[in-house]
Amino acid sequence: MESERCLYLLFVLKAMRSFIIVGHKATTAPNFSLEDIPGTSGRLDILCRAVTAAFVLSHGIRKDVCVYLVLLGGEIPKTIRLVGETLRHLNPDERTTAALLKKALAVPATPTWAMSTSGIFVRTGGLPELLADLLDAKLIYLREDGADIRSLDEGSLSGETAFILGDHTGMTTEEESLIELAGARVVSLGPTSLHADHCIVLLNWFLDTNVFMPV
Amino acid sequence: MESERCLYLLFVLKAMRSFIIVGHKATTAPNFSLEDIPGTSGRLDILCRAVTAAFVLSHGIRKDVCVYLVLLGGEIPKTIRLVGETLRHLNPDERTTAALLKKALAVPATPTWAMSTSGIFVRTGGLPELLADLLDAKLIYLREDGADIRSLDEGSLSGETAFILGDHTGMTTEEESLIELAGARVVSLGPTSLHADHCIVLLNWFLDTNVFMPV
Repeated sequence: MESERCLYLLFVLKAMRSFIIVGHKATTAPNFSLEDIPGTSGRLDILCRAVTAAFVLSHGIRKDVCVYLVLLGGEIPKTIRLVGETLRHLNPDERTTAALLKKALAVPATPTWAMSTSGIFVRTGGLPELLADLLDAKLIYLREDGADIRSLDEGSLSGETAFILGDHTGMTTEEESLIELAGARVVSLGPTSLHADHCIVLLNWFLDTNVFMPV
Repeated sequence: MESERCLYLLFVLKAMRSFIIVGHKATTAPNFSLEDIPGTSGRLDILCRAVTAAFVLSHGIRKDVCVYLVLLGGEIPKTIRLVGETLRHLNPDERTTAALLKKALAVPATPTWAMSTSGIFVRTGGLPELLADLLDAKLIYLREDGADIRSLDEGSLSGETAFILGDHTGMTTEEESLIELAGARVVSLGPTSLHADHCIVLLNWFLDTNVFMPV
């Protein structure tokens, strides 16, 4: 148990960019259909696209990325963690990602992280537990009415940074309070309301190219 | 025929942003499997993701976008055109998009555009025919070693602009010559090699936020 915790802390320390996506209706059970992901999984397709946006490059996987999928569509919340450093079997297509998540949801989940396939872990617990784990990270909450992301100075994004994104339903008041209490900065990518995966593509590009300069 | 041509010209004139994606292995036949799009369609999944990246917003479809998918994986090349202004039935998930393209490929194609479903058209012909149609557009060819996109002045992207992107195989020498002859500017989004759909997300954001300023 202790060695597992050390391994987890090592992941957190090494991960330069984390993306947290909250799926309010996303299933916590593996019995959804790969033939109709949007219709049978509580829109797990949104989270699948977020995963590929976070990790896939034209010829490889981003090693410095960590993704947390917070699944709230079951009786007990679950969180899936994907770690770029050790992630295997991820292809750019949606169905393959959904199949990997299906495997993760078939693992009996407890409050401790359990590995499903290489680089993919699952546990019970939702946003409060996750934010408690990320006390040392700089939290950035993406919302249309936040501060222009280009107004952030580079220092705001050095070290361990975790971006929090909602799904199609938006965050609840309780979640917003929790995020605020955790000290997250509220930041916007512009007036156009984008899907979570598109936001992640932009964030990766910003971090790749260091375009955080005053506007 | 003449009214169809007028309608087409109207689309071209109204479309403020076009994205051309060349699928070198992409099937021109509708007999691929929706259960294994990457494995049975010559990587039509890449083009599906490009389509959703181009059109979908958090709550709607971009009306000012036009997408051309150049499919070269059959005996005779085909091009599918998707027009935001009239596009219907497009959902953000990959499978739904693939199903729409399947329908388009089932339409008997001739050198004249034929409508499949609302906003989706198909014809025979590949890149030479398409570039001949887009003589009035400002062509931008995305390639890693091009000029930094932020070095373009705003004028370079006003009016009708068409961005040309390759798939996972890259462009051939012949295609590059053709694109050069058509007067395209060669532009880069940065040193990190990205998937076509991620490039489109970035291009849409640049155009939304007018960040084309000298670096």
